[in-house]
Amino acid sequence: MIAEIIAAGSEMLTPHRQDTNSLFLTAQLNDLGVEVAFKTIVGDNLEHLTGAARTALSRADIVIFSGGLGPTEDDLTREAVASTLGISLRRDPTILASLYKRFAARQMVMPPNNAKQADVLEGAVILTNSNGSAPGQMIDTIVGDYRKLVILLPGPPREIKPLFEEVVKPLLEATLPSRSLARRILRMALIPESHVDARTSPIYNEYADVQTTILAGHGEIQLHFTSAKATLLEAQARVDELAGRIEAEMEDAIFSSQGESLEEVVLLMLEMRHLTLSVAESCTGGLLAQRLTAVPNSSRAFVGGAVVYTPELKMVFADVPREMVEMHGAVSPEVARALAEGIRARTGSSLGISITGLAGPGGGPPGPDAEKPVGRVYIGLANGRDTHIKELNLTGDRDYIRWWSSQHALEFLRLNLHR
Amino acid sequence: MIAEIIAAGSEMLTPHRQDTNSLFLTAQLNDLGVEVAFKTIVGDNLEHLTGAARTALSRADIVIFSGGLGPTEDDLTREAVASTLGISLRRDPTILASLYKRFAARQMVMPPNNAKQADVLEGAVILTNSNGSAPGQMIDTIVGDYRKLVILLPGPPREIKPLFEEVVKPLLEATLPSRSLARRILRMALIPESHVDARTSPIYNEYADVQTTILAGHGEIQLHFTSAKATLLEAQARVDELAGRIEAEMEDAIFSSQGESLEEVVLLMLEMRHLTLSVAESCTGGLLAQRLTAVPNSSRAFVGGAVVYTPELKMVFADVPREMVEMHGAVSPEVARALAEGIRARTGSSLGISITGLAGPGGGPPGPDAEKPVGRVYIGLANGRDTHIKELNLTGDRDYIRWWSSQHALEFLRLNLHR
Repeated sequence: MIAEIIAAGSEMLTPHRQDTNSLFLTAQLNDLGVEVAFKTIVGDNLEHLTGAARTALSRADIVIFSGGLGPTEDDLTREAVASTLGISLRRDPTILASLYKRFAARQMVMPPNNAKQADVLEGAVILTNSNGSAPGQMIDTIVGDYRKLVILLPGPPREIKPLFEEVVKPLLEATLPSRSLARRILRMALIPESHVDARTSPIYNEYADVQTTILAGHGEIQLHFTSAKATLLEAQARVDELAGRIEAEMEDAIFSSQGESLEEVVLLMLEMRHLTLSVAESCTGGLLAQRLTAVPNSSRAFVGGAVVYTPELKMVFADVPREMVEMHGAVSPEVARALAEGIRARTGSSLGISITGLAGPGGGPPGPDAEKPVGRVYIGLANGRDTHIKELNLTGDRDYIRWWSSQHALEFLRLNLHR
Repeated sequence: MIAEIIAAGSEMLTPHRQDTNSLFLTAQLNDLGVEVAFKTIVGDNLEHLTGAARTALSRADIVIFSGGLGPTEDDLTREAVASTLGISLRRDPTILASLYKRFAARQMVMPPNNAKQADVLEGAVILTNSNGSAPGQMIDTIVGDYRKLVILLPGPPREIKPLFEEVVKPLLEATLPSRSLARRILRMALIPESHVDARTSPIYNEYADVQTTILAGHGEIQLHFTSAKATLLEAQARVDELAGRIEAEMEDAIFSSQGESLEEVVLLMLEMRHLTLSVAESCTGGLLAQRLTAVPNSSRAFVGGAVVYTPELKMVFADVPREMVEMHGAVSPEVARALAEGIRARTGSSLGISITGLAGPGGGPPGPDAEKPVGRVYIGLANGRDTHIKELNLTGDRDYIRWWSSQHALEFLRLNLHR
């Protein structure tokens, strides 16, 4: 069974908007054992939509539309499907009544246009939408000699997601052959994708019945393993066996074997060891603190810290002597050490971590930092006994250097906690 | 002239990867006066690719492929286009030589597979790729009675972008009818899209020759105006006239009339007034500082600040009395005021801004904050003479509340500076 997803809406043919529903729909369909083979994005144009519907019906078993079910003249999915399948639309009195009621509840008069949201394809199952006015529709039909499922869904994410999960998925489960799916995700930081692949592909290639996907980006590599079997037990055993062998190969490079983020793992490790953390950030300007505090309940281990963007604030919040900055530059192992030790002492936390560096685009200010290259970053980690320093030499733009610096700081902390 | 963009690659048919090249390509094509009418995403499958190519040639004048030009067996764009157009591939000796040289320069032996990157469609113009091994190709041909341009481009963003800008765009400019395009972007924060539309649509609807697009998201509304005319002067005059009328209508709700971000505008206003800024963040945990420091040269106005996630740190970094937190709760106008005044005094900046609130998902800790709803946030702004406080009651998840809090803080600061 292969599917095609058609996203209808001219805004998705501008440089500003992506179709994102298809990512959700793809995950849901894959869970049901259906592969998505094509995605099409088409504007609010009856001829284009009809053409896209005809093409999709010729090459896919399941065709899912998202969008184009609204009340305006530009909402043409119903009309396009009716014309493509050669069936008519009827105005459903129950849906029409519920539309009138929605407006009455808001003490508004329904514009006549809106009545078209009650138009239903002859023979379609109505998929009740509890989060919006336009219901979805599904037609189970024969085109040529083949069975085709055509499903029309609304475009807004807050409508399509519950509608799919609560109404469409149970319907598809009942009509498609049953199978059970198991998944595992292993995550690693700061390792090149080619290294991971060279070390792991000899292993995962032995598992033809497990689908392996490698995702790389933002200083992280993810290995996704999926297996589909008659029973969940069988499927889980296969992905667990493969994940176990990869964990043995990659050892402590793997920070997460259940899908948690690096921030979550570090916070959990701190909490389990009854340790608290503070940060002093120069070039990352709050990014590390922001990443940590994005995790709910981060306050169990993270106390806070300072954004020390000037030499004065390095003194004010972390007791870094002015002369040290003048002698070595703010971007130096000496200042990284003093910042980490200073923020730890000031906040009374068990661990203090610091980041100081040149994120660009301009170089360092006059003085000792002037000669240092953009991308030079120092990380300091103080624990009260000793202080570890790491030098980075990153290449990339300001956003990239800031992100990777925060990623290195988290991984540096994790590996130190791991030992 | 209408275009279709075909993104080739099975990874874009998973729940994890989007086609993003098409956003860049759409912007470039629109600049050339070409509308994108369809986007198709297709996997690494010769039959599917050939079908997609055939469909695209039947409905678009310009068909652009991204991806599928690599050296592996899964890279099939060349073969699919050759088969669809009924032309053959020839192995180009100049490209082959340059492939051998690339490997030799890295002191590696080229795997025999890689030679297929030298395969060129008979009659194609070779588009030299200075950032990768696979060149692009363009064919200007007749299908049926219609002229068709078929363009094959590599998938990696760092290859396709310079290749399009430096090689493809000049070629298309030379072959397409000439026109000039002018653009303006107006940006507003924290206003509902429906309000903006109700007030501005009577104006922009008078300008049928200017394309207006409204984009809403992340606490911001953008109005994009585009006009295409025979001369740049004419086009610019039209968008400027419309933008001027919208600015008169929306007044100081518009923070940017040339496309700058809210962070950039606030930093520029501070710098022009010779003011400096510090921040004390509780629930946003560094997000506001991170947004400000993401702007290059933000240190001209932003000195830094503190992430005060615990009552202790509110005392340590901003001199907020422990008893005040105990009496009113950390999420209170009193603490917001003390934080803003305290961080300003500690850092010696002209202005101090604070954010304290409940971002959820859990409620406040036992004590005065326990009864306050998730989404309650206070912002304080101290300037040395008086301190302004703003109460927010936001609804949404943790990320949403944190983002909107930082957006409100920036807009609060902007409106205060504006007066």
